[in-house]
Amino acid sequence: MTLIEPGDEVLIPDPGFIAYPVITRMAAGRVVTYRLPAENDFAFDLEDFKRQLSPRTKVVICISPSNPTGRALSRDDLRAMADAVSASGSDAFIVSDEIYRELYYTPERPASISEFYPRTIVVSGLSKSMRMTGWRIGWLAGEDAVMRAALVLHGYVVTCASSISQKAALAAWTDEADVARAEMRAIFHCRRDHLLGLLRNELGLRTVTPEGAFYTMVDVSRYGDSLGVAEAGLEQGVVTIPASAFGSEGDGFLRISYCADEDKLSEGVRRLGEALKSLV
Amino acid sequence: MTLIEPGDEVLIPDPGFIAYPVITRMAAGRVVTYRLPAENDFAFDLEDFKRQLSPRTKVVICISPSNPTGRALSRDDLRAMADAVSASGSDAFIVSDEIYRELYYTPERPASISEFYPRTIVVSGLSKSMRMTGWRIGWLAGEDAVMRAALVLHGYVVTCASSISQKAALAAWTDEADVARAEMRAIFHCRRDHLLGLLRNELGLRTVTPEGAFYTMVDVSRYGDSLGVAEAGLEQGVVTIPASAFGSEGDGFLRISYCADEDKLSEGVRRLGEALKSLV
Repeated sequence: MTLIEPGDEVLIPDPGFIAYPVITRMAAGRVVTYRLPAENDFAFDLEDFKRQLSPRTKVVICISPSNPTGRALSRDDLRAMADAVSASGSDAFIVSDEIYRELYYTPERPASISEFYPRTIVVSGLSKSMRMTGWRIGWLAGEDAVMRAALVLHGYVVTCASSISQKAALAAWTDEADVARAEMRAIFHCRRDHLLGLLRNELGLRTVTPEGAFYTMVDVSRYGDSLGVAEAGLEQGVVTIPASAFGSEGDGFLRISYCADEDKLSEGVRRLGEALKSLV
Repeated sequence: MTLIEPGDEVLIPDPGFIAYPVITRMAAGRVVTYRLPAENDFAFDLEDFKRQLSPRTKVVICISPSNPTGRALSRDDLRAMADAVSASGSDAFIVSDEIYRELYYTPERPASISEFYPRTIVVSGLSKSMRMTGWRIGWLAGEDAVMRAALVLHGYVVTCASSISQKAALAAWTDEADVARAEMRAIFHCRRDHLLGLLRNELGLRTVTPEGAFYTMVDVSRYGDSLGVAEAGLEQGVVTIPASAFGSEGDGFLRISYCADEDKLSEGVRRLGEALKSLV
């Protein structure tokens, strides 16, 4: 509501986090999607991105690392995206969703498109980096006029974040929190490798190697559509998300989380294997 | 956004809490006001209310006890309002703002319009009754279809209230909390009478006797407009709200809070007296 007028276009990744199309419609915007092609492990596709940009594009959503794919955009990808938006003459804002940016399995922390594009609004919070989901602490950072307008709307919608949560959140800016984040990265790195190994070696499935977040996308297309496979999993007591929920590019995939520990991941993969057997 | 479509009319009291006109515009609704006449100490005016009702009225806002006036609608007022809405054929929802309903100085707790009108959405929370303002806990109660729709929007706007706050909020439904609320009512009752006495006897001002909440409306019209008088107060170090902020019916009045203790209220009134002297 701060960034667009009715009918303005918002460019959203497919697949991408499910809230973006809905909140765009709530603000009376028009959803346009750019493909992160499944056949290329959901990597950034500059040519498709350029095709979807138009002078009516007012906002571009950039999610890195991505929910649902776990992929992080490289510095070259981010620079190319920034250059394409600049060249389009749309004067669009880029909303950079960095909620998973502290959870990465690469030697360096993933870059932010704000390093390449000045008109970026960074969206982040403590739900993932500090596992403080229930405290509901997040933030925006960007140019002053946008922040001031957002603050007015925020005041009328929620007044403010809980002051108790705000005080607790200060713990995130301590040396202790730095150590805790590094520990979680190491733990999730092990869980990721454990899960990918099982999915590939035990079940023979193609699965994306995520650079960040705690999800992988698993190709189950030979067993039917996403929803049917996810439902067969539920029958065996294992919860996965049919990735078609994140856009049509997710058809035939499941999003699988590796938040759980190794034992639970092993049991989940075993049950998923049972579910797949029931489908052939 | 749950209750109205663009262009629908929302009927709002004048004076009334400042958020309602703004959030109506955010939802693309049209603001229509009904007068709570200053000359009648901001009591409910059934005739004006009926004049403002129309078949395009989709929502009626009822605030009792009222911010800014502290007035509570009587059972007769509420029944008359309910009957008028029913008779209008508008099939409107009444949003009953009951945030101050636990703070009253009458023998009985003020009634709720939900007792007289089935299509009521009750809005309340713990900010006033439990002084848990910073915890940000509130709620809606009304018919199922509206609750389900509101829950979808709420999920995309704020996900949920802080889970820590939700747990802490359970303390409000204990015998201990009942006792605490009764104590606060007694304390605020004394503060109210202390403040009204000073304003009337020391400063000779006409002031409304509130049945609830912790505000009174003070007629300062012979000293100039609300904003000028409030600014003169600030010069003396006393904070009041120019009641014109709550609608044109508040012109010439200040909203004065009696949350502070008796000593502070006495000092505030002394300073307000100095401010008024500077204006004559």
